[in-house]
Amino acid sequence: MSEKTEKLIRPGEIEFADTETIRQMQEHKLAEMLSFINKYSPFYKAKFKELNIDIRNISIDNLKELPFTTKDDLAKFNEQFLCTDKSKVADYITTSGTTSEPVTFYLTSNDLNRIAYNEAVSLQCADGSSNDIFQIMITIDKLFMAGMAYFLGIQKLNAAAIRVGPGTPNAQWEYIHRFKPSTLIAIPSFIPKLIEYALENKIDYKNTSVKKIICLGEPVRQPDFSFNELGKRITSQWDVKLYSTYASTEMSAAFTECGKGNGGHSHPELLILEVVDDNGNKVREGELGEVVVTTLGVEGMPLLRYRTGDLCHVYYSKCSCGRNTTRLGPVMGRKQQMIKYKGTTLFPQTIFNVLDMLPQIKLYQVEVKRDEFNNDSVTVYIDIHLKTSPFIQELLSLFKSKIRVTPLLEFISEDELNSRVHKTDKRKTEKIIYL
Amino acid sequence: MSEKTEKLIRPGEIEFADTETIRQMQEHKLAEMLSFINKYSPFYKAKFKELNIDIRNISIDNLKELPFTTKDDLAKFNEQFLCTDKSKVADYITTSGTTSEPVTFYLTSNDLNRIAYNEAVSLQCADGSSNDIFQIMITIDKLFMAGMAYFLGIQKLNAAAIRVGPGTPNAQWEYIHRFKPSTLIAIPSFIPKLIEYALENKIDYKNTSVKKIICLGEPVRQPDFSFNELGKRITSQWDVKLYSTYASTEMSAAFTECGKGNGGHSHPELLILEVVDDNGNKVREGELGEVVVTTLGVEGMPLLRYRTGDLCHVYYSKCSCGRNTTRLGPVMGRKQQMIKYKGTTLFPQTIFNVLDMLPQIKLYQVEVKRDEFNNDSVTVYIDIHLKTSPFIQELLSLFKSKIRVTPLLEFISEDELNSRVHKTDKRKTEKIIYL
Repeated sequence: MSEKTEKLIRPGEIEFADTETIRQMQEHKLAEMLSFINKYSPFYKAKFKELNIDIRNISIDNLKELPFTTKDDLAKFNEQFLCTDKSKVADYITTSGTTSEPVTFYLTSNDLNRIAYNEAVSLQCADGSSNDIFQIMITIDKLFMAGMAYFLGIQKLNAAAIRVGPGTPNAQWEYIHRFKPSTLIAIPSFIPKLIEYALENKIDYKNTSVKKIICLGEPVRQPDFSFNELGKRITSQWDVKLYSTYASTEMSAAFTECGKGNGGHSHPELLILEVVDDNGNKVREGELGEVVVTTLGVEGMPLLRYRTGDLCHVYYSKCSCGRNTTRLGPVMGRKQQMIKYKGTTLFPQTIFNVLDMLPQIKLYQVEVKRDEFNNDSVTVYIDIHLKTSPFIQELLSLFKSKIRVTPLLEFISEDELNSRVHKTDKRKTEKIIYL
Repeated sequence: MSEKTEKLIRPGEIEFADTETIRQMQEHKLAEMLSFINKYSPFYKAKFKELNIDIRNISIDNLKELPFTTKDDLAKFNEQFLCTDKSKVADYITTSGTTSEPVTFYLTSNDLNRIAYNEAVSLQCADGSSNDIFQIMITIDKLFMAGMAYFLGIQKLNAAAIRVGPGTPNAQWEYIHRFKPSTLIAIPSFIPKLIEYALENKIDYKNTSVKKIICLGEPVRQPDFSFNELGKRITSQWDVKLYSTYASTEMSAAFTECGKGNGGHSHPELLILEVVDDNGNKVREGELGEVVVTTLGVEGMPLLRYRTGDLCHVYYSKCSCGRNTTRLGPVMGRKQQMIKYKGTTLFPQTIFNVLDMLPQIKLYQVEVKRDEFNNDSVTVYIDIHLKTSPFIQELLSLFKSKIRVTPLLEFISEDELNSRVHKTDKRKTEKIIYL
């Protein structure tokens, strides 16, 4: 790498550079990446040969000439993506297997440094600094990437970590009082439970050190950047600033909002982002498309034009925070999760939004079944205690006014609902299932 | 630090040096430590002043002139032990609160490096190398020191980590098959459960990649280094090598066995070890005494002559592995946990050993109550399914032959037993309670 490029990528600095400088840096890193996978990745080496691709002719402008990598490729040819000897593996990661078989990711020491760098710049972007104390409310165990990435990023930022892990509202409050974190790192749907516990136990949650919440795993905003129902529920009860994030193990990087809350910023030194339509063409400013990433600087399992399946609105314009990096709106859903129901096309999040509007509903599961006409039927499972006719009327009319269609309702016991949503063998909660 | 000393403490090297070289290195580090706490520790600064201690007159030989630090001091004056500005804290730790109120430990970046170094040399001592893959079966969450220490140590060793966390035998076996770890890091009483799960699910556990188990939290040996009942139970069913460890948050270091299995090695560059009798005098080779540690190189919360309360046999002689460092036998118990029962003095571990001899007993709790004569009564709670007269006879006669006294037996339901032992608000299982 030339001295000039090296100098430009001091943490966070490149994000404020002009478009051409960012492009040059990416061009350089892309060439490195292509030459690396052409040499070390059994999968890509074979692919380039088969398709007769000369990587020397590839630049960002004609990236489209390279094939996509899909989730199926990863699942089927998992080990063939590994670019290093197994003895160089430092940390084993598995994806949660939300949409397909769990996939293994092999991280080298350099990759651990890279995810640490990613979180350091991401947290910095989210108004974080060495003065912050972060309470980590997600697990670092279970071969999970995010928890360790946050811990290492906090260390790189010279900030402090309180490694609590998920759940246990009583412990979370105890540590909030004892160690006075400025920022929580949490799955946002856990926050209403945390508030509820505080209310039940007369904890003065409004007057704590907590000022910011980094929200992962679920969106808290609408495409217009206003809060969705979950975001509204949190901010109406607690005067905290929410920062959306969007990330995945596959991209080994995160899109994290800055203080302006106008979408998650990409870190151009860590990946090349494309947001494409059904024909693989780049969508325009503010439009919805599928997120496709090419990882930069990954040593263990670099990915080329990886189709995430996630649909987001994209914003190329410079952010008012001064960063000149592409931003993504909230994940609207996964391509294969689009629901066709009674003539309407829906994303799961749209259904969650309605259910999140009613504070009586603490837990739910949405079940989607496809019939022989390729139409979906949607059933919502909720707690049997809510089975009263005024409540049913309220919920159905809410669905009608918000999304024009009404799902089937099934009332089941709290225990059954709990065991459906919190499956012991799954790392993530199952708010939606497809049959 | 002089260039000469620096050169000597390359990882692991100092352990093989002669006694005089080790002493010189420790003398140097002790002087640094005393001057550091005299300057930055509010607690020790006041203590030295109060007792009129001139630290310049202190060497290893007259360390006895300095006061002990007790668990009570730590609990009462917790923050006064902190030597740095809070903004330098990188990681918040709490002790498990097994024997008193949970105590906070503040780690700086340097302290995280120090615990990483500690585990790197400890794992190296336990026949570990960069070729090893370690499956971590304890949590990195819950503000727990050990899990993070192991992860960072594995990274420093250039080895690989599989961060599974505690419990979930099905997941543990899945990852053993998928990633082929050479070494498990586990609470040893979890291993019989792991084997049991394998037997029930027809998993060919005898033919896996697993060759070594680093055992923490519970002893697997007797003072003569032969296996205790738990150690025997594991090794009789599974051809793996067990390595005992003894460690605590307070000492921020570990005593880990080498391949010879003759007690856990101290790392003289990390702490000064004293093993003392009731009068505070050093006990001799092979004798039992209380473990007292002075931490070296700790920045956040260094401790001077900290009385752990743990009783171990000590071995000063050179180990047949070539390391010239003090070794500790298994923890016999804590001073305040000594049980006086029917004229006999017992450690909890002695009772556990008997109970561990009967494979029918999967879970138990020992309850110790003190009467008005300062004598203890001991009750053992076990599963009601075991309440048959042949079993009761077998158990009582085993107690008689092994420890000469018989405890009271109480048979309770599996659920009740489970909830007694695995309290949700406790990090450790409660195998023994004192009322």
